Amino acid sequence: MEQNGSNIPVILANGDFPTHRIPLGILKNADYLVCTDGSLNALLRFKKEHLSDLSIVELEPSAVVGDGDSLSDELKEKYSHIYVEYAEQDYNDLTKATRFCIEKGYSEINYLGISGKRDDHAMANVSLLVWYLKNFKLKVKAYTDHGVFIPCCGDCTFNAQKGTQVSIFNFGAKGLKSTNLKWDIYDFDELWQGTLNEVTSDSFSIKAEGYYLVFLNY
Amino acid sequence: MEQNGSNIPVILANGDFPTHRIPLGILKNADYLVCTDGSLNALLRFKKEHLSDLSIVELEPSAVVGDGDSLSDELKEKYSHIYVEYAEQDYNDLTKATRFCIEKGYSEINYLGISGKRDDHAMANVSLLVWYLKNFKLKVKAYTDHGVFIPCCGDCTFNAQKGTQVSIFNFGAKGLKSTNLKWDIYDFDELWQGTLNEVTSDSFSIKAEGYYLVFLNY
Repeated sequence: MEQNGSNIPVILANGDFPTHRIPLGILKNADYLVCTDGSLNALLRFKKEHLSDLSIVELEPSAVVGDGDSLSDELKEKYSHIYVEYAEQDYNDLTKATRFCIEKGYSEINYLGISGKRDDHAMANVSLLVWYLKNFKLKVKAYTDHGVFIPCCGDCTFNAQKGTQVSIFNFGAKGLKSTNLKWDIYDFDELWQGTLNEVTSDSFSIKAEGYYLVFLNY
Repeated sequence: MEQNGSNIPVILANGDFPTHRIPLGILKNADYLVCTDGSLNALLRFKKEHLSDLSIVELEPSAVVGDGDSLSDELKEKYSHIYVEYAEQDYNDLTKATRFCIEKGYSEINYLGISGKRDDHAMANVSLLVWYLKNFKLKVKAYTDHGVFIPCCGDCTFNAQKGTQVSIFNFGAKGLKSTNLKWDIYDFDELWQGTLNEVTSDSFSIKAEGYYLVFLNY
């Protein structure tokens, strides 16, 4: 599984804080780390718990984006040089942080902390990944403690170890077909229908017209 | 928030084991508890960790349903009197347990442990709730550590404390309208669009034609 490329910004959302080595590696290696309001608090707690680990204690956000609701006045003051307030209520903190990265010129983003905690937020965040690809043409991946979500459009090929568990969620694509998956995919109507599949070689391919979301289990 | 009525079976799935008092209360008060393969292991671990709490140590499943993949031979032997094997691969353990309850004559089910752990399983389980209502005419609720998922069809009214956070996920409904929600709902296209709403009175109503899913945060 690839680690974070140095030129890809990382957005830390306020779901479950990463504990698996893959998302943690991406967090530690982030050259440009954007926290939402809530995740700044989580990052600071995490740093306090790992005072003996330099690679963690030296972690600092490059920007903090949100509406300020979850930040103490002390933290707002301390991080005022990198704090960016988006007061509007139409979008959640994940989208505010995403728009901030787009305004900075990034076309690719790695996400952490999108799931866990409130189940409705997690579902919203997952569906937002597809929306970011569709509307912002952003290349995104979201790494959780269990696997990586990759929103896709059209034909895609993935490198993956044989036996990797994979799920495909259809977000309106037609003509879904697969190569090197244990069960051939089709035009799923339901979110659950494309789950629990498995890679049968060292790569697999999906052919489709439109948008879908791949989840690769670590 | 209501506790589990004694005549409603409880299915414990193998996501995060409940820790919040509401799902834990439902687990402890279950008169008819169905475990999946994996969740039986989790239940037995939980009992070991709470040897001083009689209400937990005396918890016993009424049935264990699955394909046997996750059960040791010792446990299969110990629970052979209540073990029901569904070998077919087309449906996951949640659906196997659900079909078992339907065959027992139940028309209502409370679910626990549907989220947490593998994110793709959680998404599948959430979408299955709507599918159970649509295809089996089952009245279901799924209690997580954060709130309750309630799949709905048509017009529904919910009792809820003013200020309760609520999310509505559209599963194909048309003509979505709300009363006593902070932001009026509409025919959402995306899963994230109906999230982060709030109840403005001691009840709220939704009018719709078709299926949608309500999440009420505790």
